[in-house]
Order: sequence, then C-alpha cells, then structure tokens
Amino acid sequence: MERIERHASHDGYQEVWKHASVTLGCEMRFGVFLPNAALQGRKCPVLYWLSGLTCTEQNFITKAGAQRYAARHDIIIVAPDTSPRGDDVPDDPGYDLGKGAGFYINATQQPWARHFRMYDYVVDELPALIEAGFPASDARAISGHSMGGHGALTIALRNPGRYRSVSAFSPIVAPSEVPWGEKAFTAYLGRDREAWKQHDAVALIGTTTGRLPLLVDQGADDEFLASQLKPEMLRAACQEAAYPLELNLRPGYDHSYYFIATFIGEHLDHHAKALR
Amino acid sequence: MERIERHASHDGYQEVWKHASVTLGCEMRFGVFLPNAALQGRKCPVLYWLSGLTCTEQNFITKAGAQRYAARHDIIIVAPDTSPRGDDVPDDPGYDLGKGAGFYINATQQPWARHFRMYDYVVDELPALIEAGFPASDARAISGHSMGGHGALTIALRNPGRYRSVSAFSPIVAPSEVPWGEKAFTAYLGRDREAWKQHDAVALIGTTTGRLPLLVDQGADDEFLASQLKPEMLRAACQEAAYPLELNLRPGYDHSYYFIATFIGEHLDHHAKALR
Repeated sequence: MERIERHASHDGYQEVWKHASVTLGCEMRFGVFLPNAALQGRKCPVLYWLSGLTCTEQNFITKAGAQRYAARHDIIIVAPDTSPRGDDVPDDPGYDLGKGAGFYINATQQPWARHFRMYDYVVDELPALIEAGFPASDARAISGHSMGGHGALTIALRNPGRYRSVSAFSPIVAPSEVPWGEKAFTAYLGRDREAWKQHDAVALIGTTTGRLPLLVDQGADDEFLASQLKPEMLRAACQEAAYPLELNLRPGYDHSYYFIATFIGEHLDHHAKALR
Repeated sequence: MERIERHASHDGYQEVWKHASVTLGCEMRFGVFLPNAALQGRKCPVLYWLSGLTCTEQNFITKAGAQRYAARHDIIIVAPDTSPRGDDVPDDPGYDLGKGAGFYINATQQPWARHFRMYDYVVDELPALIEAGFPASDARAISGHSMGGHGALTIALRNPGRYRSVSAFSPIVAPSEVPWGEKAFTAYLGRDREAWKQHDAVALIGTTTGRLPLLVDQGADDEFLASQLKPEMLRAACQEAAYPLELNLRPGYDHSYYFIATFIGEHLDHHAKALR
C-alpha cells in the first residue's frame, strides 16, 4: 500500500492511496480523509462512500466538501474507485459498463468474472485494509451516489450488523427494472433475473431481517429521475415491508455534485449519530 | 449572453454563462452563484473570484465549496475564466503563459496585445455585464488564488473605492521578482521593469492612497512558497507603508483547493462584513 497524495484539509489530511487488490486482481486507488483525531492516533469510525458511473476516487474527495463535516464529527471517510482498473481489465465502449461502472457486484459472466468483484472488495477487502492500516475502529457507515447509492443500499441490506448507518444520494433503487441496471446485470450476472435480486434494493427490502433506517436524498429535477432512479419504487417497497425510510425529494436539484455538496452535511450528521 | 449550465446549489443556483467579450475579442465563460435572495429579485453584493494558473471558470465553482457561505450571506460570486480562449487566441507551450495564464494584466507586446486584456475585462467589462444582467448591486469584493490572488490584490490596490473588501489565497505578491511573473510580464509587458510595477502588489502597496485591509491565507507547506509566492515580501511592504494586513500562515496546508475549501468560509465572512 502506497500513499500517492496528501493534502491538509480541515485540520486533518485528505490522502489517496494505491494498493494491489487481491479481490480485483489489479491495482486500486482510494481516497481517505483522516480527521485530526485520527492523526492523534484515536480510533475513528469510518464512512464508506461509493461513487457513481464514470467516477474515480477523485470526484467525491474534490467536489463534495464532506471533509468539513467529517472533521467536525471525527469520522474517517474512505472513497474507493468505482471499478477495477488497468490494461488487463476488460472494458466496454459505453460509459455504463466496464471500467467506471463496477456496480458493486461480483460478476459471474465472461469476460468480467475475474476482475469485476466490487461487492467483495467493498464489503471485505477494503475494510480489512482500512482497519489494519489506519486508526479506524470497526464502526462502519456506508453511503453513495447513483450507482454508488445502489451499492450502499444493497450492501447495507445484505449485511445486517456490518454497518451502523446507511444513506444514499439519487440511488438506482431498482436496477433490475431500469436500463442502466438491465445492461450491467445482463453483462455481469447473466440473463437469469433471479440472480439480479441480490443486487436490487427494492427486491431486497422485503427479504432482509435488518432494520437500518434509510436516509435518501433525491433531486426532483434530476435528469435520470424517471428513467433510471424511480425513488417511488423504494418508497412503496419500504411501506410494504414496514422498513424505515426518510426520502427527501429536493425541488430544483439535479444529479450533480452541486446537489451532493448541498446536503452532504445532513448525511454526515445522520451517520455521526449512529456511529457515536 | 447565454446560460450554458444551471445547477441548484444551497437553495440558490450555480450557473455558467458564455458571452462575446469586446475587451478580449473572444467568447468567454464565467461561473455565477446566485443565492436565493438574488433569485427573489433582491440586489445582492458581488464577490469576484480570480482563479490561478491553468484554471478555467470550473475549478472554483466545483471545488471550493464557497456556495454554502455565499448563500448564508446573500452574496453573488462571479468566477471568470483565467485568460482569453479560442483558436484565434495566441498560446504558449508552457502552462504559465498564454491560455490559462492571463495574469490579469493588459498586454502591450505581440502577439498578446490584441486578446490578453484580463485587467480591463475584470475591472470594467465583467462587472458592467453582471450589474446589468443579474440582480447585483454595485457593492463589490474581490478575491483569488495564486495568480488570481495577485490579480485580486493588484486590482484592488489600483482601484481605490471600487471594491469594499479584498482577500487572497497563496497570492503571487511580487510577480516582478519571481519566475512565474518574470516570464509572463516579459512576454506580455516587455522588458521595461518600470511598467511591471503597476501589476505588482508589493510595489503598489507604497503608492496607493487606499487602505482596504488585506486578508491573506498562505499554506506553510505550499510547494511554491519560497520560489514564487514569498508572503514575507508582502508583510515587509505592508509594515513599511503602514498598510493593514492579516496574513495567516497555515501549517501543513499546500497550494491546492483542499486548502481553499478549508478557509473559504472565513474569507466569505471577511467580505460579508464589508459588503453589508
């Protein structure tokens, strides 16, 4: 593991590290914000942030402005890249498949199965690395945007007890039923839609034993709202399963980091309460 | 003038506009954050932000997180591009001359003299455009980073009464005496160093009649500190001229937007007090 960036930020440090990922079979990068308390050697809880399509580890750390709130709450934020990377990793001409589009699943189909294992990477390898290499406690939270919101919700729903809180911005709540998810799941998981349900928040809500309250923010003017995101499906599934959901539809806001930067402080507050 | 981006942000809108600049003889872009008060038609004061080398109108608006504070104080922020642009505009292979490196001067030398007139653009054309086209009052403040910090300081010092407040992050305080400035001023203004003094904050401090308090933040671990920035020269010049200066040397911080994002709220506070 090697540190490749280090910038003072809000009395802590925003760093970027690279390491050889066993799970993904390639070199990976992640951003990590270390609040001052962590620099002093105090073990801090960790928020995992999963980014959306086309993003790397850079987008969230440069644009969301989350460091201010993480510093206030003594929270470490870990922001991994969104897919395996490198010349050996298969890709697709579309922005929504292959590199930059890992979808936080373990692929079973060729040519993807060797490297596209972002589910295992985020659930197991990355936390083990963080908890061994940084002053991080095992109190974990998870959040993300769009494809990463899908990742955060599905990973939290499938792993009761592993995270103390979960939230999402503009998540793809029902990938099995929208074009982005149908394309990616067909490629990565094959045509059997039964296998898709393990990676579909709306399908998982009725099956999980956990009851981790969901906080979801969604821009009402999001260009992908009606075609890809469909928050009303999450609302209906949560109602049916009596699953606690706070869904904020924000008038005027779109799918961009300007939206995330506006409400990220509220999400950090949400996680800080659970992580305390 | 045409709007090319619009994103809800902190209860207001972050927009990007393009227009044909008479001063620069090319199409120019600028970012403008409109707080909710401005959307309601109330005239708001304007902070002009001048960016540094290699930047466009995008860097500050996506990375600094200033919108939160501008929203709190009902301040419009205008962030222009850093040079003329387009195929007709001369350029240089270096990142520190030509496009992305306007240095907020009016060039007198060829091939630069036709287009490189960022001083007139920022002082006259842009404020006229903003005050005619947006709900902006004529209460102005100015700030910037690095080359843009140099721009903010020199423009404020040369135009007493035009701005109510000024601040800078990591400014080039004495461009006449450091490599970035010597290269640019030789190209844009010629070899006569007497002409350079009009664009050198340290040289101007002793000559100006105004007394607009300077707020300057500088990272102590800035990679350009000793070679290009030399804040101690500004401190000495201000002491000699009895010019009010608050210079904060920030341990650990570098030249990046992580530094700006950490302290931008304090700069907005500084400007809000003067603009009220």
